[in-house]
Amino acid sequence: MDAVNHQFRLAARPEGLPKESDWDRTEEPVGEPGEGEVLVKTLYLSLDPAMRGWMNEGRSYIPPVGIGEVMRALAAGEVVASNHSGFAPGDHVTGLLGVQEYAIASGDALMKVDTDLAPLPVYLSTLGMPGMTAYFGLLDIGRPAAGETVVVSGAAGAVGGLVGQIAKLKGARAIGIAGGEDKCRHIVDELGFDAAIDYKAGDLDAALGEHCPDGIDVYFDNVGGEILDAALARLGRNARVVICGAISQYNASAAMKGPSNYMSLLVNHASMTGFVFSDYLDRLGEGAQDMAGWLAAGDLKSREDVAEGFDNFPETLLRLFEGANTGKLVLAVG
Amino acid sequence: MDAVNHQFRLAARPEGLPKESDWDRTEEPVGEPGEGEVLVKTLYLSLDPAMRGWMNEGRSYIPPVGIGEVMRALAAGEVVASNHSGFAPGDHVTGLLGVQEYAIASGDALMKVDTDLAPLPVYLSTLGMPGMTAYFGLLDIGRPAAGETVVVSGAAGAVGGLVGQIAKLKGARAIGIAGGEDKCRHIVDELGFDAAIDYKAGDLDAALGEHCPDGIDVYFDNVGGEILDAALARLGRNARVVICGAISQYNASAAMKGPSNYMSLLVNHASMTGFVFSDYLDRLGEGAQDMAGWLAAGDLKSREDVAEGFDNFPETLLRLFEGANTGKLVLAVG
Repeated sequence: MDAVNHQFRLAARPEGLPKESDWDRTEEPVGEPGEGEVLVKTLYLSLDPAMRGWMNEGRSYIPPVGIGEVMRALAAGEVVASNHSGFAPGDHVTGLLGVQEYAIASGDALMKVDTDLAPLPVYLSTLGMPGMTAYFGLLDIGRPAAGETVVVSGAAGAVGGLVGQIAKLKGARAIGIAGGEDKCRHIVDELGFDAAIDYKAGDLDAALGEHCPDGIDVYFDNVGGEILDAALARLGRNARVVICGAISQYNASAAMKGPSNYMSLLVNHASMTGFVFSDYLDRLGEGAQDMAGWLAAGDLKSREDVAEGFDNFPETLLRLFEGANTGKLVLAVG
Repeated sequence: MDAVNHQFRLAARPEGLPKESDWDRTEEPVGEPGEGEVLVKTLYLSLDPAMRGWMNEGRSYIPPVGIGEVMRALAAGEVVASNHSGFAPGDHVTGLLGVQEYAIASGDALMKVDTDLAPLPVYLSTLGMPGMTAYFGLLDIGRPAAGETVVVSGAAGAVGGLVGQIAKLKGARAIGIAGGEDKCRHIVDELGFDAAIDYKAGDLDAALGEHCPDGIDVYFDNVGGEILDAALARLGRNARVVICGAISQYNASAAMKGPSNYMSLLVNHASMTGFVFSDYLDRLGEGAQDMAGWLAAGDLKSREDVAEGFDNFPETLLRLFEGANTGKLVLAVG
């Protein structure tokens, strides 16, 4: 194969938002898959807030990306060549392919997906990591009962939009916090949330009070910072706070802001529990089956925000931290 | 009855540590108990960190003490006169008697205690609110398994000293964090903790790493602030953080410091849950039975730090926030 593989490698550990010089755009010949391996042409890159954390030094749930390594990313693509009995050219797969046009991966680390059932980007979205993150975070940790009030931040994002929809499917009220009128309209009109709060519009605390007169039963947090504090101040008795992310803090140069109102947990006999997607690897089948069923029945809407062009990876990633995406941000690769 | 009742009333809401002018020392004639009421002579006042919170304006798990009201306090005393069939003069009781030498209370709000089984101050300590706080916080929320590592801050205090002892009774390792050599010696030599960390002695993070090489399974927090952050940074997988108090923050004039390291909950699939004693009012019998049994068997040591003199109430209360007490701080009255 004579094709050239373009890649984005981590050139430096960013301080604050990743900038151009933190990336090294490289090219190398496309290699040949070894025994048990598969060569995949990347079609869609998944752009996720978690990627910012993977760029930092230090202990976390997953080792950091090394300097000089191809940036880690989930992606969906098409099999070009296979030395693994489970895959044949033309198959569609998802996996940790990295920010590159071609990847060689162990077949055992890939998942074959059926594009007759759902378009390929949906496997990076509702039927992928964000979908399973929403599903297990809400149902295993948040455990909303029918009639309870669920509040989710980042509600127009990939995970948040699903959290509210799943909450509704379980009979709970879903209140979304998002930035800007368009996103708020989207989550109510298209996704079916009961209400949306535009945190950019003014008094978040008063809005939470208005929409949650009996307090918040489940708060699903994707953003951290002041929004987390505002939600803590409105918890109801025995509330469950689900810590899924803290996108407002990922690019902070100063120390992360802790939730000043955490003593609300004490006052309300409430809990705050964190998790990551990979905590549920052994239960993904359960989540995928439910989510695919709801999707097929039209009970769940999958919204992808598709940007174009491999070379646009660095600036497209920044859209996550600018709050510029509505739904799951993916990059269609040339 | 001609006796005079001296009282400490809340004169102003303190900023920072309560000062002399925040109190009003009053006197009035001792009254007569009405129907169903009991007149009690206070013998021991319970001095608790929670009292500082009761002096603040604003929503909490219990209404604040009003300006001009007798300061709220748990206390133990002797019945002087009774219009309630459950009590007779000479009986010993505990209840929310307030910071005063005599109290008239509804008999239904008092608990009769047996001083043949344990000295009266123990009913404000191991067999009272601190004991039940340690018992339910550790066993209902922390849920330590045998072999797990339990870390408790404020370990030489009323609650902390019991948390470590109960952890040991359940087969867990108990590591206490306390301030100063004497307290550290006390919790290891007298209370039987496996180890003590003197947070004033230096590198708390390194000491936690040394004593908890596999991470912390249960962290029981009485103090908040930097110690909470240090413990969060050392959590093990599926750890449970019990939020019982935040004594380092109660007198802060600035906004409370939230735990910057709360994302450790996410990385470790860990939870942080708050509670107050009164959440368990309907299960107190269960706790009292276990605690009294352990005490009678010599498996639990009850340590009271007894100060003297009703008029010394204001400065004795401050000892809690100076970390000057070892064990349960009580004030012997009269």
